[in-house]
Amino acid sequence: MEKINKMKLNAPYLILIGAEKDPTYAKTGFGLVQWRPELVAGQLRFSGCRVDLSVPDISVEEAASKGVRSLIIGVAPIGGIIPDEWWDVIIEAANQGLDIVNGLHIKLKDHPKVVHAASKSGSRLIDVRVPPPNLPVGTGIKRTGRRLLTVATDCACGKKYTALALDKAMREAGMNSTFCATGQTGIMIVGEGIPIDAVPADFISGAAEMLSPDNSPDHWDVIEGQGSLFHPGYAGVSLGLLHGSQPDTFVVCHDATRNVLSGWEHYPLPSIPECIDLHSQVGRRTNPNITCVGVSINTFGLPTNTREEYLKNLRTETGLPCIDPLVEGCGDILDNIRNKFDIL
Amino acid sequence: MEKINKMKLNAPYLILIGAEKDPTYAKTGFGLVQWRPELVAGQLRFSGCRVDLSVPDISVEEAASKGVRSLIIGVAPIGGIIPDEWWDVIIEAANQGLDIVNGLHIKLKDHPKVVHAASKSGSRLIDVRVPPPNLPVGTGIKRTGRRLLTVATDCACGKKYTALALDKAMREAGMNSTFCATGQTGIMIVGEGIPIDAVPADFISGAAEMLSPDNSPDHWDVIEGQGSLFHPGYAGVSLGLLHGSQPDTFVVCHDATRNVLSGWEHYPLPSIPECIDLHSQVGRRTNPNITCVGVSINTFGLPTNTREEYLKNLRTETGLPCIDPLVEGCGDILDNIRNKFDIL
Repeated sequence: MEKINKMKLNAPYLILIGAEKDPTYAKTGFGLVQWRPELVAGQLRFSGCRVDLSVPDISVEEAASKGVRSLIIGVAPIGGIIPDEWWDVIIEAANQGLDIVNGLHIKLKDHPKVVHAASKSGSRLIDVRVPPPNLPVGTGIKRTGRRLLTVATDCACGKKYTALALDKAMREAGMNSTFCATGQTGIMIVGEGIPIDAVPADFISGAAEMLSPDNSPDHWDVIEGQGSLFHPGYAGVSLGLLHGSQPDTFVVCHDATRNVLSGWEHYPLPSIPECIDLHSQVGRRTNPNITCVGVSINTFGLPTNTREEYLKNLRTETGLPCIDPLVEGCGDILDNIRNKFDIL
Repeated sequence: MEKINKMKLNAPYLILIGAEKDPTYAKTGFGLVQWRPELVAGQLRFSGCRVDLSVPDISVEEAASKGVRSLIIGVAPIGGIIPDEWWDVIIEAANQGLDIVNGLHIKLKDHPKVVHAASKSGSRLIDVRVPPPNLPVGTGIKRTGRRLLTVATDCACGKKYTALALDKAMREAGMNSTFCATGQTGIMIVGEGIPIDAVPADFISGAAEMLSPDNSPDHWDVIEGQGSLFHPGYAGVSLGLLHGSQPDTFVVCHDATRNVLSGWEHYPLPSIPECIDLHSQVGRRTNPNITCVGVSINTFGLPTNTREEYLKNLRTETGLPCIDPLVEGCGDILDNIRNKFDIL
């Protein structure tokens, strides 16, 4: 299997959070602390910041003196623009010899002061969100091996986390699985993948096909979903990824406290059954046997005494395992997969 | 209203068809001859070519001596790659001072020999398929004015033609309308637009929103559709364009002789009612009042004596005006629009 966009980041990391006010947009920072805590030295926050990764606050100067080797931009605001006032810090870090790792749509290479600082100190500028060249158009031809895609009622509600947790659970259960990263944080965590939302529109499903190529019959690609079929900004990405992934099965991710799309409050969230139905309906086009195996709920915002009932009602409504991967783990969904796909 | 990606091509044109064997992939050439015949001086074909635009065959040298000012690449093969043997002709044309106009995903500016030839002769290299920078993410916020989108059961079956014909019919009927180009040929025909299939995936619907901004209540944007929601290669583009266009109404385009996707013969075409249903279902997300006003059929391949019955049966099946715009014109669909939207 050919490796895609492979890269090696230099640890330890300093994570730039800046003045971010909404944890929803600090997915990258939280993801790294969650899945690669041993590589994170600290966070860099400005006054007014309301996000806390629960790692030490350190400055660029302290970081450099402690041997930190990369400054990772840890937030992904809407539209992916770096606020002007952050550039000074980024330039300082590049001056101090830290690699700069950027997962936003902007390119570090387009900013002469950063390029100059990095070339003087010898540090690297790594734009994670640059898709590989020469992507193919999707063929829709069925590939060998099994695939699971995480999908969702909204952005930023657990697709990456659920896919990472399911992949981990599968491997712990002795199954042959690979986490396939489609976003900047996932790519930073595992060191390879395709930033599917940066691919030119004609090649979305082709990129997804490349991401989970033919494999052995018992192998599972656990593919990180993007956006939502119900999102007025991102549904095109979600559909291309669904078609190209041709998943045998999918897991719906949802934040129990949301009724409207985060940041698009004029849009109500779909119900979970609606979400299952639409993905089954359009996913069938490239995999007629597509089926939903479970629902992954972020129950963090629910009052503790309502959690159990919420999940129980959802189980009755959907007839599927409904879990919070942070609380129950993915065991029930994994059991359902083993059962549906006759895995001993 | 801000103009997007505006450009001015220098006529007359020589259209490069090369050794193309399938008229389906010569959309650009046919579109220019159809809608801008007065600007086309001739075609340039290689041996083995099975496509004929019914304009004079002329060489680059003849074209230059006759005052032709642009060589337009008139084909759009799958994946958008220019065959190696064509480059010699393109370089020759640039040497002779012709502008080179390219609508494929490749960029002329990446080819040093072409750049060198153009810089020597002073001709221009125009890459139509470069999207504007700084596109926004789609907001899904309802815009003023009316919008019509052409959609389809497959690629290359009449979406651009139908939109151009409807826009023309609307203007002839005294309505206030604009054709919005989303592909290379449409952009070449009207001189502006956004190449929606080249936009980074995150910005598809945002680009579509920019393409048909707020307008006066009686104004119609007639938007050229791309791909098909049922296409395993391009459905993501189609969904993003549908969401961002938030059309009040849509017209389904279909080639009467096709049962499978052109070039993707392992995929059956959806039925027209299926196509209407899926667009209504997912289009409702950004425009709850979306409705289908007609079906545009390419009946060219049907035996003449079966045409009428085919369209009559389809009218019964769908309850909608079903026409071939090349034969009947768009009058019936226009009448239905005026009726549904209370236009006197």
